[in-house]
Amino acid sequence: MKAEILAVGTELLMGQIVNTNAQYISSKLPDVGVGVYYQSVVGDNPERLKESLKLALDRCDVVITTGGLGPTQDDLTKETIADVFGRKLVLHEESLQDIKNYFNKLGRKMSLNNEKQAFMPENCIILRNNNGTAPGCIIEDGEKVVVMLPGPPAEMKPMFNDSVIPYFKKKSTFTIESKFLRVFGIGESAMETAIIDLIDGQTNPTIATYAKEGEVTLRVSAKTKPGEDAQLILKPVVDEIKKRAGDCLYSDEDKTLDVVAAELLLQKNITISTAESCTGGLISETLTNIPGISNVFIGGAVTYSNGSKMEFLGVKEQTLHEYGAVSRETASEMAEGIRKRLKTDIGISVTGIAGPGGGTELKPVGLVYIGLATEKGTITKELRLLGNRKKIRTITSLHVFDMIRRHVLNLDNN
Amino acid sequence: MKAEILAVGTELLMGQIVNTNAQYISSKLPDVGVGVYYQSVVGDNPERLKESLKLALDRCDVVITTGGLGPTQDDLTKETIADVFGRKLVLHEESLQDIKNYFNKLGRKMSLNNEKQAFMPENCIILRNNNGTAPGCIIEDGEKVVVMLPGPPAEMKPMFNDSVIPYFKKKSTFTIESKFLRVFGIGESAMETAIIDLIDGQTNPTIATYAKEGEVTLRVSAKTKPGEDAQLILKPVVDEIKKRAGDCLYSDEDKTLDVVAAELLLQKNITISTAESCTGGLISETLTNIPGISNVFIGGAVTYSNGSKMEFLGVKEQTLHEYGAVSRETASEMAEGIRKRLKTDIGISVTGIAGPGGGTELKPVGLVYIGLATEKGTITKELRLLGNRKKIRTITSLHVFDMIRRHVLNLDNN
Repeated sequence: MKAEILAVGTELLMGQIVNTNAQYISSKLPDVGVGVYYQSVVGDNPERLKESLKLALDRCDVVITTGGLGPTQDDLTKETIADVFGRKLVLHEESLQDIKNYFNKLGRKMSLNNEKQAFMPENCIILRNNNGTAPGCIIEDGEKVVVMLPGPPAEMKPMFNDSVIPYFKKKSTFTIESKFLRVFGIGESAMETAIIDLIDGQTNPTIATYAKEGEVTLRVSAKTKPGEDAQLILKPVVDEIKKRAGDCLYSDEDKTLDVVAAELLLQKNITISTAESCTGGLISETLTNIPGISNVFIGGAVTYSNGSKMEFLGVKEQTLHEYGAVSRETASEMAEGIRKRLKTDIGISVTGIAGPGGGTELKPVGLVYIGLATEKGTITKELRLLGNRKKIRTITSLHVFDMIRRHVLNLDNN
Repeated sequence: MKAEILAVGTELLMGQIVNTNAQYISSKLPDVGVGVYYQSVVGDNPERLKESLKLALDRCDVVITTGGLGPTQDDLTKETIADVFGRKLVLHEESLQDIKNYFNKLGRKMSLNNEKQAFMPENCIILRNNNGTAPGCIIEDGEKVVVMLPGPPAEMKPMFNDSVIPYFKKKSTFTIESKFLRVFGIGESAMETAIIDLIDGQTNPTIATYAKEGEVTLRVSAKTKPGEDAQLILKPVVDEIKKRAGDCLYSDEDKTLDVVAAELLLQKNITISTAESCTGGLISETLTNIPGISNVFIGGAVTYSNGSKMEFLGVKEQTLHEYGAVSRETASEMAEGIRKRLKTDIGISVTGIAGPGGGTELKPVGLVYIGLATEKGTITKELRLLGNRKKIRTITSLHVFDMIRRHVLNLDNN
């Protein structure tokens, strides 16, 4: 089936918001046998909307609209599309009740405007909205299908996943299910080379690699007919990739590296503290974004100046003098210092030059040392990173979380 | 002039990337007299691209394409559009030189593929690319204008701003210039109420308000004919809004609150240190994102546990016992403690309950205390915030930066 995604809303044409809905829907439809051939955006204007809809119906089998289902006079998607199909809008009692219940939950009274949202095209499939007031709907007309979804992503996404995906799954002759494997410590092209025979040799499942600042994600996708088990197709290939990625693989559940590291610490009840220079609190900030982390994260120091490195971490003046603030030696003492001060199992340190200034020929921008201290000793790692300040800080944090992950996993092996 | 933005790229239809280019271009065109009536996306398919272009030329005066100017066989925008206008592609020597120079700068040799990028439609206006290899171009055909821009935003945006905006500015009978005023500490509707007579009474300039987590931005836009001075139209209204916003206004240059606060510290050479509990390093991380901040930011402590609050900041056990970690008293001692330890002019503290767990009836999620200590004493502020963990942390950080800003400004007045 060929599809067009038609977004309705003058705020999109004014550049006030980005059309993330089109991206979201486009990324999911191929998995249920629907290919997206066009995306388009039109304003809150019934004439242009009508023309755009007719064009979309002319060149595609499926049209998915987003937006224009609100309670105001501007919201005309349902009215305009019903008109194109020559269908009346009729009051849908259950939807009206849903809307009233929604306002009740908020402790507010439904305004009269909202009643308009319960008027739906005759003979359509109603898509309930558990996250807002606008129900969606599906009109089937011969071979053509028009799906109308609300514009706010918080309402659109659950409705799309809960109702639209199952609808097309039932119509489709095949389904695609995917598994996401995430690796760190091996570049995209090296990873691709390591599994090129699998990529070239496979038609089902297919394998694709995506790179994002320092991380690589592999998507393994199985195409199945109704009744077939996607897991049977996925498992042997996923297992083989896992074997080849070795300990570079950190998640087969599409989790981020910081979350994987934090979950390991929480599982094993290993306490941690941080001493950051060039990351300025990014490591602790990322860790403390994770609810419940206070069980293992005790605290940290952001030691930008040499003085604060000595005062908070007990870094020796001689070390700073002899090796400099950005050195393996200082990283060691920082990690050991914070660990001792806060009495944690692990002490983490970062010191480096994030730029744009501060680099020298010997110690260029992008030179970073990270350290991990435990009761058994301290390991440090030298990074030489490229990119701007933000990128250097972000990639440094990934290396730190990977160091923590590997450390905790190795505890099991010893 | 009516415009359509036509993005070319199968990766958009696959949902691999979001069409941020359309939003960016759409937000800027109205200021040079071009209204965006449609946005559309088509894949790397010459037939469908040709159809989409013809449709766009049919319904609009201006078509702006993004993408499809790369060196590969897939990149067909220029070839297809030249074909529609019956124009040949001819080698543009300067562009070829630009591409060669670009590779030279990277220390690499130009691959033969890239030569294709220097072949441009006959009689077009060339748009040089200083950030990549693909030149853009403008084809004028009678009343119709087609602008072709590269797809990567880092190449598209400077080319659009440096070449396309001036091009339309020259053609347009009017220009819109805007001034952005940012305020904190007054909600969007209260701000609107405070200037409702200006909003209602004005047609030129116009005033619009936008809200984003805790901050409000006002856009004041003047429409001018060639030769008119936009500043003359803007100034009286901007001055009046500034007067009414009072000290809630923190920038008339569209700067963020953290940057405004940091610039004030740097200007006055006021040193600062931070002691963070529930924000977990967000304040120091945000500050240290700003290059050069090491001149005034000395360091900080992330004190999640009670123990670390005592160890690093000298918070008294009795204070924690009597008032709790989330209290005005603890915030005071934290701010004073970090200031003393790191010998800074200002010590900042944050302690609160970011959720989702940890709240009680007496101290609910969203209760946050912030403190600012100086040699003259310590001020604290109680916040009661709504929202999830991330939002509570973000809004807390805005309050902190506003507190710093107000403190430094008040120094001048005393």
